[in-house]
Amino acid sequence: MRTIDWVDGGVELLDQTLLPDKTVTLRIDDVPTLVEAIRRLAVRGAPNLGVAAAFGVVLARLAHAYDSEEFRAAVESLRRARPTAANLARAADRVRDRAAEGWSVALDEALRIRDEEIAACDSMSAYGADLIEELIERRRLRVLTVCNTGGLAAIDRGTALGVVQSLHERGLLEDVLAMETRPLLQGARLTTWELARMGAPHHLIVDGAGPFLVSRNRADVVVAGADRIAGNGDTANKIGTYSVALAAAHAKIPFVVVAPESTVDLDTASGDDIEIETRGEDEVVAVRGTPLAPAGTPVLNPAFDVTPVALITALVTDRRVVRFERGETLATVPLGALRLPDPVPAR
Amino acid sequence: MRTIDWVDGGVELLDQTLLPDKTVTLRIDDVPTLVEAIRRLAVRGAPNLGVAAAFGVVLARLAHAYDSEEFRAAVESLRRARPTAANLARAADRVRDRAAEGWSVALDEALRIRDEEIAACDSMSAYGADLIEELIERRRLRVLTVCNTGGLAAIDRGTALGVVQSLHERGLLEDVLAMETRPLLQGARLTTWELARMGAPHHLIVDGAGPFLVSRNRADVVVAGADRIAGNGDTANKIGTYSVALAAAHAKIPFVVVAPESTVDLDTASGDDIEIETRGEDEVVAVRGTPLAPAGTPVLNPAFDVTPVALITALVTDRRVVRFERGETLATVPLGALRLPDPVPAR
Repeated sequence: MRTIDWVDGGVELLDQTLLPDKTVTLRIDDVPTLVEAIRRLAVRGAPNLGVAAAFGVVLARLAHAYDSEEFRAAVESLRRARPTAANLARAADRVRDRAAEGWSVALDEALRIRDEEIAACDSMSAYGADLIEELIERRRLRVLTVCNTGGLAAIDRGTALGVVQSLHERGLLEDVLAMETRPLLQGARLTTWELARMGAPHHLIVDGAGPFLVSRNRADVVVAGADRIAGNGDTANKIGTYSVALAAAHAKIPFVVVAPESTVDLDTASGDDIEIETRGEDEVVAVRGTPLAPAGTPVLNPAFDVTPVALITALVTDRRVVRFERGETLATVPLGALRLPDPVPAR
Repeated sequence: MRTIDWVDGGVELLDQTLLPDKTVTLRIDDVPTLVEAIRRLAVRGAPNLGVAAAFGVVLARLAHAYDSEEFRAAVESLRRARPTAANLARAADRVRDRAAEGWSVALDEALRIRDEEIAACDSMSAYGADLIEELIERRRLRVLTVCNTGGLAAIDRGTALGVVQSLHERGLLEDVLAMETRPLLQGARLTTWELARMGAPHHLIVDGAGPFLVSRNRADVVVAGADRIAGNGDTANKIGTYSVALAAAHAKIPFVVVAPESTVDLDTASGDDIEIETRGEDEVVAVRGTPLAPAGTPVLNPAFDVTPVALITALVTDRRVVRFERGETLATVPLGALRLPDPVPAR
């Protein structure tokens, strides 16, 4: 099941705000509706966001001439729909650059981005599982993860959760600790749902419990996705990631970031230069319509945090593994080949 | 307003599970009902729990002979109602030791415990505010806090939030960041409610945002309460505390624990020896009746974590300030006098 795709001349995507209670596919044929779906997180996850922006530019080109003000504004609204993830602007720009040749050329480029993201996830899942097998001697692995980085974030297979899935397919997984990921609970709603579907052993925990459980030797490794990786390796990811990166460093267990090359942004020098999206107060003072705090309570709601590269053991992408803890950098490790996916295990 | 008291021959307490929506006072005349109220957190906070246990022993003595099996069992059920807070067993034992002399002698001892806790909070609020004024040069203080340690946790004035209140009364407070404190949201429901009532500027944040906001210089100091402080200074407090203690150490800002001497447990050598209460799965998979995760999701729900003394700048009690960061210990710093409360400021 793909979480976003191009179907019969328009975008279809699974509305992730309704999971796990309801599985509803949205049909979207215009850019404003798509931007709104991106903003309210009906579609989410850095790889999905890139594909959504790519398809969005095709929708814009279907509706408007290439050199029109309307086309330019629609592309800009997609690029800026969410500020932290690097993939949106990158994918939108790629498709826009082909859109002068007509909408069908733009669509070919968008479909290429989709296929690249799918192949990238297969590749990084295998690279990541290999790395973790190399880093950790134990063969009954306990993995802690943040937010949702599974197929729901990445079209088909996941990024960080794709690595978890590969470890599970290799028969190495003892437990997954899934942080619930307030305020929008992608861990509680989505990651647990995906782990159950893949038959992987897991426990849901509140976000505040992650660092403590790491300190008490309940995890062998922390794996996280990324929304933007700066040139020096500093990584923006869902709020709460920094807390477990600190705990992992303190407990001397590996903290591994798993994300496609499309998330690497060499134009951003360091984490200090990454714009952190601040989201609405309503996400914090209520959950799924239930009020949690007194009416009118002021809120600070940063959606992402930045983990400095000094706390990151390694970055796994579809094309390379950068071992920061050994002094490697994005500049010194060249891109390698895409890995073929692991053979599907016999069931 | 006292959150728990002895009224007309029985216990009256504010049901904190219903705040901030409803203000309901419960009347309790027997031990099993009191134990159930403690377990479901209708009454909570280490100082309150001590007073609840003390009054509970009086209720037990009213119902049973001192040397009866029923009395012994009732006292034991109070001592064990929640395992992590040190105050329960300590207060229950003090009242039990006087209960041979009759229930009214026991009641005098329980009322003494109540009055001591109230005086202790006044004293530690003043000591704590003095310490923070000494530690931090800035005179517009931004304080981050965890869970609820206000009057709702401590009969009248709070412990850590009592210090915040003193800073506010001294005109030094710029902002309070209140962590929401999943799963039971004492920060979102109770701390914001108390801060609004005292007119203190504040923002509610999700727990995962605490460490990041500390790393980004949004707080000058972290203050937290305690449920049990081991002999070496390791401190058990609400889950999530460890995460901000780590972040504070990393950001080189003070992390200050504020708790009465009754929370210090010299019989427990270190944090490794503190029993951590594991609470029910239902607290995590739903919030106030709204489901958050797929049905049947397995959960790990530790209610407390342990912050090692190496991460604690200082402990403030009603009788002393122990500057761990200077090498002071609970063994080397003698008990001092109770501080008189700050004069109430003119409004």
